[in-house]
Amino acid sequence: MAYKKIAVIVAGSWGTALSRVLADNGHQVKLWTRNPVQADEINNERRNGKFLPGAVLPKGITATTDISDAVKDAEAVLFVAPSSAMREVARQASSYIRKDALIIHATKGFESDTLKRMSTVLAEELARPEDEVVVLSGPSHAEEVVDRHPTTIVVASKEIGCAETAQDLFMNDAYFRVYTNPDLIGVETAGAIKNIIALGAGLSDGLGFGDNAKAALITRGLAEIARLGAAMGANPLTFAGLAGVGDLIVTCTSQHSRNWRAGSMLAQGLPLTDVLERMGMVVEGVRTTKSAHVLAARHNVEMPITDQLYAVLFEGLSPDKAVGALMGRVRTHEIEEIASASRNKWLKG
Amino acid sequence: MAYKKIAVIVAGSWGTALSRVLADNGHQVKLWTRNPVQADEINNERRNGKFLPGAVLPKGITATTDISDAVKDAEAVLFVAPSSAMREVARQASSYIRKDALIIHATKGFESDTLKRMSTVLAEELARPEDEVVVLSGPSHAEEVVDRHPTTIVVASKEIGCAETAQDLFMNDAYFRVYTNPDLIGVETAGAIKNIIALGAGLSDGLGFGDNAKAALITRGLAEIARLGAAMGANPLTFAGLAGVGDLIVTCTSQHSRNWRAGSMLAQGLPLTDVLERMGMVVEGVRTTKSAHVLAARHNVEMPITDQLYAVLFEGLSPDKAVGALMGRVRTHEIEEIASASRNKWLKG
Repeated sequence: MAYKKIAVIVAGSWGTALSRVLADNGHQVKLWTRNPVQADEINNERRNGKFLPGAVLPKGITATTDISDAVKDAEAVLFVAPSSAMREVARQASSYIRKDALIIHATKGFESDTLKRMSTVLAEELARPEDEVVVLSGPSHAEEVVDRHPTTIVVASKEIGCAETAQDLFMNDAYFRVYTNPDLIGVETAGAIKNIIALGAGLSDGLGFGDNAKAALITRGLAEIARLGAAMGANPLTFAGLAGVGDLIVTCTSQHSRNWRAGSMLAQGLPLTDVLERMGMVVEGVRTTKSAHVLAARHNVEMPITDQLYAVLFEGLSPDKAVGALMGRVRTHEIEEIASASRNKWLKG
Repeated sequence: MAYKKIAVIVAGSWGTALSRVLADNGHQVKLWTRNPVQADEINNERRNGKFLPGAVLPKGITATTDISDAVKDAEAVLFVAPSSAMREVARQASSYIRKDALIIHATKGFESDTLKRMSTVLAEELARPEDEVVVLSGPSHAEEVVDRHPTTIVVASKEIGCAETAQDLFMNDAYFRVYTNPDLIGVETAGAIKNIIALGAGLSDGLGFGDNAKAALITRGLAEIARLGAAMGANPLTFAGLAGVGDLIVTCTSQHSRNWRAGSMLAQGLPLTDVLERMGMVVEGVRTTKSAHVLAARHNVEMPITDQLYAVLFEGLSPDKAVGALMGRVRTHEIEEIASASRNKWLKG
């Protein structure tokens, strides 16, 4: 395969880690950042001290603060901006991007007001068909990727040829294994919603409920996010894959997860405002619980775990009462709950 | 619901914990053990010191060494014998069991020579239709169940009425939540095969590969055991439920798992014979890797992780070479691999 010119926007921890993968594979990477000090550090010291300390960045990565310089020759543009900034950076870059450049993103979350997926936001701002946008997701701590620990991720696009081009860019035999998936909506939705379950797992651990309860919560949570995903057009089987259960396992079993930590603080009786203040940064799961609550109503999907978390976060329900409500539900058939998610186009073949 | 007379065979840790759940629900339990000292301890000291220290056993549980006494009045018989002993104890009990008694088991594993599921073994020895046998499975450390920590499990039977009767016996509002599932084969197969993945997770952790690799291994492992299950007649969606991913999460993230420990010792270069000697007890995942290897060939199912583990365990392949082989496979479509498992009767509706 020929080496390519690739733009990466922006230089956070995941954007920087993915730039290193691309440079390891021989591609020329232009990494955009607004911050000239950070750009100098990357270009002259070959490091990104604030977001990914410890990683040595090869010569194949050049930082720039000029977004037109970053994208104008690029054969592929990888967006890794926070979900809240995605629309704005895409708008800034739009007129400079080559018409034949492949568009990829690796951002987890919905646009907060519109609840739109990131590929929709990119398609709108770049005037592209959403079908050609590729999402990259899966269980992947950035710190482990720069240590070249074996990592396996998924790239999804409705146009499978676009996903395969992205697969060729990222895959290597040494440490980075890439699967393709035609289910763009499923991969994006799974990545965005899983933080709700991480919050619930922290709550369960904080209440001292043990491993049985946490495993059940993750499993039942997976079923309900798959139901919502299916109602939104996803293939429920995607939730059994790397972007679903894989990412959930990494998130729910790592005590480094912000969402898990926020949940465990809530279990100790701290009000939400205090928890958010102590965290001092965005807790995606809190916003996502609100989004999923709206989406569940819009798509008429039953989401009991999300409902209880919503009540704990925004209506003052005590955490132990929430768990009591979940345990005391009427007796249920597991398979009907899962199967209800499968009455969609993906499983008709 | 009327309280019932229930026999539990045998008094290991899980049999004893489930007896406590049944007694908590008001049922009269006869708990069978071969060991008269253990029976006396249960009846007189209300404890089972060897298998479940710390649990106080209520008066509703009576131990007996007489298998006819245990089962002759029972409206339901719960078998929790080790897979290697199941056929023999079923044969011993057979002629004393009431024709209308519900048959339930909670044992994970195949019969080693025949590779038969436990419900098949019970159906053969008790001269019952396999369709009426119920299996109980899911993420459930016995120690947490006796501490009355919230626990959620699944009961499965081809005859859903039998599963619902079992659900009524075990379910309570306080700590034990029970789902039904018509997929007997899936629930039994998932419980039996998951130990292979636990062994692999231990291997990955032992090699220092990190959380990304372990999450990918669990996810890809889940996909391949679902493929084997589907080829054997299971619903692949069962593997996304409590008996599948739920039980996997509990097993692969607990360092108390024997299979995980065995895997991590193999990673350090110890030969299998030394590992088994040091463990001093049965490591189910080793036997199951062999069984799955045979079953995969019989059903013509691709199981790359199982193949590599088999090569490490029985053909002297070094663990790091095994991981290299897994990472270096040709590029693949995730969804096709999962979807191939779904070309079976369960997903045709």
